[in-house]
Amino acid sequence: MKKIINKPEDYVKEMLEGLYIAHSDLITYAANDVHCLITANKVSGKVGIATGGGSGHLPLFLGYVGKGMLDGCSVGDVFQSPSAEQMFEVTKAINSGAGVLYIYGNYNGDIFNFDMAAEMADFEENIKVLSVVAGDDVASAGPSAPGEKSTRRGVAGIFFVYKCAGAAANKMMSLEEVKRVAEKAAANVRTMGVALTPCIVPRVGKPGFSIAEDEMEIGMGIHGEPGIRKGKLESADRITDEMLGKIITDLPFTANDEVDVLVNGLGATPLDEQYIVTRRINEYLAEKNIKVHRFYVGEYATAIEMAGISISVLKLDDELKELMEAPACTPFFKQ
Amino acid sequence: MKKIINKPEDYVKEMLEGLYIAHSDLITYAANDVHCLITANKVSGKVGIATGGGSGHLPLFLGYVGKGMLDGCSVGDVFQSPSAEQMFEVTKAINSGAGVLYIYGNYNGDIFNFDMAAEMADFEENIKVLSVVAGDDVASAGPSAPGEKSTRRGVAGIFFVYKCAGAAANKMMSLEEVKRVAEKAAANVRTMGVALTPCIVPRVGKPGFSIAEDEMEIGMGIHGEPGIRKGKLESADRITDEMLGKIITDLPFTANDEVDVLVNGLGATPLDEQYIVTRRINEYLAEKNIKVHRFYVGEYATAIEMAGISISVLKLDDELKELMEAPACTPFFKQ
Repeated sequence: MKKIINKPEDYVKEMLEGLYIAHSDLITYAANDVHCLITANKVSGKVGIATGGGSGHLPLFLGYVGKGMLDGCSVGDVFQSPSAEQMFEVTKAINSGAGVLYIYGNYNGDIFNFDMAAEMADFEENIKVLSVVAGDDVASAGPSAPGEKSTRRGVAGIFFVYKCAGAAANKMMSLEEVKRVAEKAAANVRTMGVALTPCIVPRVGKPGFSIAEDEMEIGMGIHGEPGIRKGKLESADRITDEMLGKIITDLPFTANDEVDVLVNGLGATPLDEQYIVTRRINEYLAEKNIKVHRFYVGEYATAIEMAGISISVLKLDDELKELMEAPACTPFFKQ
Repeated sequence: MKKIINKPEDYVKEMLEGLYIAHSDLITYAANDVHCLITANKVSGKVGIATGGGSGHLPLFLGYVGKGMLDGCSVGDVFQSPSAEQMFEVTKAINSGAGVLYIYGNYNGDIFNFDMAAEMADFEENIKVLSVVAGDDVASAGPSAPGEKSTRRGVAGIFFVYKCAGAAANKMMSLEEVKRVAEKAAANVRTMGVALTPCIVPRVGKPGFSIAEDEMEIGMGIHGEPGIRKGKLESADRITDEMLGKIITDLPFTANDEVDVLVNGLGATPLDEQYIVTRRINEYLAEKNIKVHRFYVGEYATAIEMAGISISVLKLDDELKELMEAPACTPFFKQ
């Protein structure tokens, strides 16, 4: 394990301490617990938006707490859900009377704990909480009957849900309206990823799985969940075409749609490769007569030091487009 | 070689094409050559600032072209200098009558070509060009007599030089004044790096050097130039203390100094580790009674997919502090 760390058991705590030092203008913490991260700029009367999840995905999840996006994030150990108590503390700290919206990825531990935190907020503090579970991953969609709970994992596309909901809350929309916006964004985003190497959880000290030296895995999850196809490493254009093809047919996206596109590095993959993929996405979508409103390129949701990328596509309407364009200022996203 | 690329010989061209697609509001190119990158928002009467260098270091060098920082960047192949002709084309395109300042790293190929481009600009177009060569690396300082040319390589600390000079030009300072500011910033920044893994130039297809599985190299350059010490991988705190110790004594930085600090990921190292290092830097400098004005953390100057970090420290005075705080908007740096 080649990492610049101290004791593995101090990894998350020390990372958080560094974050609070570097970004004290934007973030602080509640309940005397560094895992209960909240905005340093609470806006009175605004719907509070909280997220949470395991560490190891920076800038997810906590990096989007700030002005115009999220208000709080409970932070778990690497690839572990934070506790319901931590979520409850964040909820109390960010509530300013207009209620709190939870937005988080579709993982069992998070669902269980966020549901419990919402009950605690209701019973103990009379805070109204609504929840939106984001599941944008195409690879994990699985077969499901209408009305069944989705098996789709939440991956990088949750960035779009945060951005739209955050801008809606910033316009002082009601809790129900912010939830409607978050649900619309979540329903209109699809993501596919490809992994080239595994990653190492510090406490474990070795990779949890392997990918052969000349292979890739299409559709792998951000904790190393199995993808839909292992195969020989192919060219950037072929990888891009395969992933985009699956994204386009899944929603589906069709001619004359307008979209925002997120090209996301999973950790070790250089920006150069992300831009090579951006170039091909632009060609591919132009051939389909799908118009790109804006590209976002960089590390938005990682899997520690995994090499690979993901592509997320958000179908826009006038409302989502305006919300995507609104200003935001967080440690990891400024516009 | 595990990379998401097409033909290695198309690597830089396709990366640049992706960049122009994603950031068309901020950058474009001159002379019908994608390697001649310039701002899309030229300001009349302002000193133009150009840089240049090899690819493989994103966001260096080109990512800082935009509003409030650089105006142009000639882009070479991976780890190769761009040509004097490309630098000359950028110079012509960004000149708006107030002259052009070149700011670039201390590498022989770049020095030779930028000097030639400056002569071409003078003789052929009557454009006044001045140059500042940045060399912030402590590890490559070497022994040199007073007045001798420095052997220090330019590394991540050039970000501070770009930021200060760009803000000075934006205040419509004269060419001589912008050069003075750039020289002051360059003289007051020091950097040390540590590498954990090598990187692979796409055309070469294999690492140019190796670092044993349990070792690190302190002081390695961003092209894999030899460092000052190979040794067993140590804890984040010990690595940080060793690098900061060398930085502090080199300038030197002393009690009551105020500084900006850049914690830079070299490519594959996760943000988590960068923040663990940030935490220790804060402790270390507090012990020395050196005040940190602001931390910058993230990938600012990389070596393709090398794992490792660098630490850069800039000694501030009132002028540099004001210039560091000025707004900027480029593809990779916004404040």
